[in-house]
Amino acid sequence: MKLLQERIRKDGMVKNGNVLKVDSFLNHQMDMDLFNEIGKEFKRIFSDCEINKILTIEASGIGIACIAAQYFKVPVVFAKKAQSINIEGEVYSTKIESFTHRKTYDVIVSKKFLSKEDKVLIIDDFLANGCALAGLVELVRSAGATVEGTGIVIEKGFQNGGDMIRSMGVRLESLAIIESMNGEDGSIIFRD
Amino acid sequence: MKLLQERIRKDGMVKNGNVLKVDSFLNHQMDMDLFNEIGKEFKRIFSDCEINKILTIEASGIGIACIAAQYFKVPVVFAKKAQSINIEGEVYSTKIESFTHRKTYDVIVSKKFLSKEDKVLIIDDFLANGCALAGLVELVRSAGATVEGTGIVIEKGFQNGGDMIRSMGVRLESLAIIESMNGEDGSIIFRD
Repeated sequence: MKLLQERIRKDGMVKNGNVLKVDSFLNHQMDMDLFNEIGKEFKRIFSDCEINKILTIEASGIGIACIAAQYFKVPVVFAKKAQSINIEGEVYSTKIESFTHRKTYDVIVSKKFLSKEDKVLIIDDFLANGCALAGLVELVRSAGATVEGTGIVIEKGFQNGGDMIRSMGVRLESLAIIESMNGEDGSIIFRD
Repeated sequence: MKLLQERIRKDGMVKNGNVLKVDSFLNHQMDMDLFNEIGKEFKRIFSDCEINKILTIEASGIGIACIAAQYFKVPVVFAKKAQSINIEGEVYSTKIESFTHRKTYDVIVSKKFLSKEDKVLIIDDFLANGCALAGLVELVRSAGATVEGTGIVIEKGFQNGGDMIRSMGVRLESLAIIESMNGEDGSIIFRD
């Protein structure tokens, strides 16, 4: 997605340790014009799929998933990190290791909101080592629901998450794939 | 907001301990049609305000804030709970006690995304004891920015958060205010 690549080049910042900061438009401050273009693009890419629900994970996936859901005309469910007293009864749960926060979370979805009739599109902002996305795929499958596809805004193509997700037999579409980036000079090379 | 009251009556569940579960449409599974009506209503209510940014807090405020932001044509910033290695340099921070999770969070916003020129609308899903909302007001004020108003989807009118926020000199608009509710028979009385 050319508009997204341009925005990453313009406003993204490459840091040492393979960190790409896109917090001015994607995951701290959020640009709704860009999110709408992202939502339209996901709808275009997955237009051949019968999707009745979008699943994401708190927190930075929620905004993108909600804006995209308007184009699919479906509800969004977000997976929650750790148990809340407001989550009732039984939940599907999995463990996810966060690259950013360097810790392991329990991630849960109430059983009320995933069932075997569901055809789910999973949306998230980043794909790096793939732990979060693999966990969400597992959650959907443990409900007997179908993962129609996974839509990622930015994939770090030099990490192994993409390969892992594809090896699970899951369709993965990333709007921008970073082939390599350099913390010294701030350069980014996108995969074609 | 009549549509919202009707939805709360239809799909909300009153639990003992003054817990209102609206996770089927507001804060776990999220109904985008309802969110759009909520966004339009916030725009109507705050149409006299010059707002250039919406601030919310992760996680359940994000979806509502993003959908509403489309009507205001402004970006959204969400305050984050606890420090992340991806948050650069200096941040505005405050401590917030969560009623739901029964613990205290550090809540931060990068200084890059709040400045004294900003005229901010704060949006959140729930107002109960007001700790989260008061913390967000403090964050905005510590940046020298202006709180134009606060927009809440559901206020628990029998708790003291609303009074506390108003006593801070902040305009507060809640789309549904619960006067009382009963965990035994599930009844809800709204304030007119």
